[in-house]
Amino acid sequence: MAKAITSRSEDYSQWYIDIVKRAELADNSAVRGCMVIKPHGFAIWENMKDQLDRMFKETGHVNAYFPLFIPKSFLSREAEHVEGFAKECAVVTHHRLMNAPDGSGVVVDPEARLEEELIVRPTSETIIWHTYRDWINSYRDLPLLINQWANVVRWELRTRLFLRTAEFLWQEGHTAHATRQEAIEEAQRMQDIYATFAEEYMAMPVVRGTKTESERFAGALDTYTIEALMQDGKALQAGTSHFLGQNFAKAFDVKFLNENNKEELVWATSWGVSTRLMGGLIMTHSDDDGLIIPPKLAPTQVMIVPIPKPNAEIGEAAEKIMRELRAKGISVGYDEDKKKRPGFKFAEHELHGIPVRIGIGKRDLAKGQVEIARRDTKEKTFQPLESAADYIENLLGDIQQNLFQKALDFREEKTATVDTFDDFKSVIEQDIPGFVSAHWDGTAETEQKIKELTKATIRCIPNDFQEDPGECVLTGKPSKGRVLFAKAY
Amino acid sequence: MAKAITSRSEDYSQWYIDIVKRAELADNSAVRGCMVIKPHGFAIWENMKDQLDRMFKETGHVNAYFPLFIPKSFLSREAEHVEGFAKECAVVTHHRLMNAPDGSGVVVDPEARLEEELIVRPTSETIIWHTYRDWINSYRDLPLLINQWANVVRWELRTRLFLRTAEFLWQEGHTAHATRQEAIEEAQRMQDIYATFAEEYMAMPVVRGTKTESERFAGALDTYTIEALMQDGKALQAGTSHFLGQNFAKAFDVKFLNENNKEELVWATSWGVSTRLMGGLIMTHSDDDGLIIPPKLAPTQVMIVPIPKPNAEIGEAAEKIMRELRAKGISVGYDEDKKKRPGFKFAEHELHGIPVRIGIGKRDLAKGQVEIARRDTKEKTFQPLESAADYIENLLGDIQQNLFQKALDFREEKTATVDTFDDFKSVIEQDIPGFVSAHWDGTAETEQKIKELTKATIRCIPNDFQEDPGECVLTGKPSKGRVLFAKAY
Repeated sequence: MAKAITSRSEDYSQWYIDIVKRAELADNSAVRGCMVIKPHGFAIWENMKDQLDRMFKETGHVNAYFPLFIPKSFLSREAEHVEGFAKECAVVTHHRLMNAPDGSGVVVDPEARLEEELIVRPTSETIIWHTYRDWINSYRDLPLLINQWANVVRWELRTRLFLRTAEFLWQEGHTAHATRQEAIEEAQRMQDIYATFAEEYMAMPVVRGTKTESERFAGALDTYTIEALMQDGKALQAGTSHFLGQNFAKAFDVKFLNENNKEELVWATSWGVSTRLMGGLIMTHSDDDGLIIPPKLAPTQVMIVPIPKPNAEIGEAAEKIMRELRAKGISVGYDEDKKKRPGFKFAEHELHGIPVRIGIGKRDLAKGQVEIARRDTKEKTFQPLESAADYIENLLGDIQQNLFQKALDFREEKTATVDTFDDFKSVIEQDIPGFVSAHWDGTAETEQKIKELTKATIRCIPNDFQEDPGECVLTGKPSKGRVLFAKAY
Repeated sequence: MAKAITSRSEDYSQWYIDIVKRAELADNSAVRGCMVIKPHGFAIWENMKDQLDRMFKETGHVNAYFPLFIPKSFLSREAEHVEGFAKECAVVTHHRLMNAPDGSGVVVDPEARLEEELIVRPTSETIIWHTYRDWINSYRDLPLLINQWANVVRWELRTRLFLRTAEFLWQEGHTAHATRQEAIEEAQRMQDIYATFAEEYMAMPVVRGTKTESERFAGALDTYTIEALMQDGKALQAGTSHFLGQNFAKAFDVKFLNENNKEELVWATSWGVSTRLMGGLIMTHSDDDGLIIPPKLAPTQVMIVPIPKPNAEIGEAAEKIMRELRAKGISVGYDEDKKKRPGFKFAEHELHGIPVRIGIGKRDLAKGQVEIARRDTKEKTFQPLESAADYIENLLGDIQQNLFQKALDFREEKTATVDTFDDFKSVIEQDIPGFVSAHWDGTAETEQKIKELTKATIRCIPNDFQEDPGECVLTGKPSKGRVLFAKAY
């Protein structure tokens, strides 16, 4: 088996691409910037989606579906919003093709030009708030807590599978509230749900914080973010939740009659996570042998490999373990392929990130035992066949916990507190830079200047921000407290 | 409460629109032909989707995701395919907007014209078979059994919510096989799954059959269909499964090495059902009071209404029933709203199609009983509180069965066998025409002529077609057996 994975130390970017392709998660398509999500990658995404969807529903949200297309004029209604998205839009201008007069194939039918161009949604605030205008009349209609699972398109020039693609899959929540306070609480609640999901399911520790003004969503008053640290010391913005104030209500004239029968503008939030999370998952855990999937998100949690090949006795033991694991709600497969040798299978299942492998061989069976290997640490152990299922149930929990702890330890190790710009630069210029906690004078100019000098951006003002006066690491001007910098994806 | 539902006898089309809007299933959007699927409608669609997805996975299919966009040149590769779809395509020609020079908003940036236009997928055979070329090399890679849940766009001029919209949601399966026989079996298997889903979950009886050549999918050698009969006597094509032969393999050069190391073209199928099923669901069961949802697809299966309003004692009884129903996997809500009277709530839950309503009043509770009303027949009964949950469990099964039987009886009543064109016309011209089983000479000309004369089309050659020679109902020419005609949506 040709191992085609570049090592992380050699070239992290290439390693990432190798993992995505060799573990059969996604591939480039014939359409520039658009990816094909392959079955194995999609199964992981489905697991993420199912968990998030459950968490949304448990907090009172319902799903709906809004149009793929947005009339061009809608985008202009909110000034910052159009500024943020107009430059990367796929624009539909015609609704028909025709045979080319010269017989060379099909061409756009010039007669079928749309009166108003349609934008393929880059995000749906505008079309949704246009719709909410009809749905909201009274305080009784509020709050409106709606989520949508959808594809969106942002025309990107430099794309990278999962992390930045022209089309991606995501969910976007769009809620409407009677008061400012309620909307802020909703936006924060969703940040909290994203953080819980990232940590408990993806085993990916995140810093919760608020974006600076220049990093805010186009049209938001506040953007709450969760920021994760990848193995190469770069940060990944993993999910954002926006307090939109009354901006979209103003732009689309969405008012309600309050309990005193007075008309007020509605308060809004929006929040989203996308297939980008797949990139975060890969870059948090995987190694030079392939993908590592936290057990809670693994489509197949356990794979049984007969050694050296299947026979009746091994089949019987495999059946027993599968029955017991499935009764515990654990997904398990049995790799019966007779054409491949065990070593080949081991490498293949490692590459695909299956958390636990069971090897069942004749000699071990005679001793009443099976071999159990965990993907994260590569440790192997022999366990009695009788208690193998119980052992694995615990092991899956251990692996989930270990992956989180390892990532957390890494992040802590790679979070530096600095007080001079020299130290700032020397940390950021390391091979694996990490987070840098430093004082900042609060101006967009300084933020921009630091970015130009070091490529580091302010990832967030952490939620646990403390008033702790100091001097800006660049300008020496007064700072109220430390914020978190990093190079980022 | 203003009842705004037009009766079916008065105007079936308007009744349909009223149901869709008043039961809050969907609405028109600001984008011509695109709908907004509202939370209640989307929750029903999610239930459909979950069941279908489970059935697909149980038969070995996996999900994946392919790009929204298709390069224009791909469409031309398969001659019939482009003929079928080129006239109703949304075409992306640009990738950027810019501020209008006159400050009037944003306009398309003429500099950002795409080299090759992109089509918003009307269906994905072309982009998927282009991808399969890379995925399929050997017989070991086959069969490839992939499904995708996605939005697609077909530019329709006359649209109707759920039934015919420019954008709709669907699943499209695309499978690749080593042999002709295996591909045909797959296409038929999926027709079977669609029929099972329609009958067992939607309680919508369907006729399984094969399309005539002129009604086939663009690019298929055979199209298998399921056809349902709506209450107004018109047929609805509810799902299709296509045997595509080697057409797409030829067009995209997809070959595999067989076991004898010889190169062969791959065999293909594709199959899909869409949000159109929502239209079928509505038009099969609902009545002049609102929506009727079969219990197996109802987001809320049981609603408890306190009479006349909630109090501690009623709340306790409601809690007990809810606990018991939930333990049985039955979804139940408790309508505690104090501002609405019971009569209003009854009408509202009827309108939304909730299968079972429980009324809990003080006087009945003193007798140890509650009132149980079923949505389908409107029958009410009193049942002991103690056994109410068991009673309801059975009742939900009865309702599911009754809805199916009622629809089946209707279809049988409205299926006529005719031998003369006069009879054919008089059946088809009735207010509620139904299916007509008649002899046909097998030519596309006759099919077209009958369509022109009566608006009826051949819905299918039923799977239980029997060699039964006769004379064509229009031309008198020889016919091998009867086919099924109807006016259709």
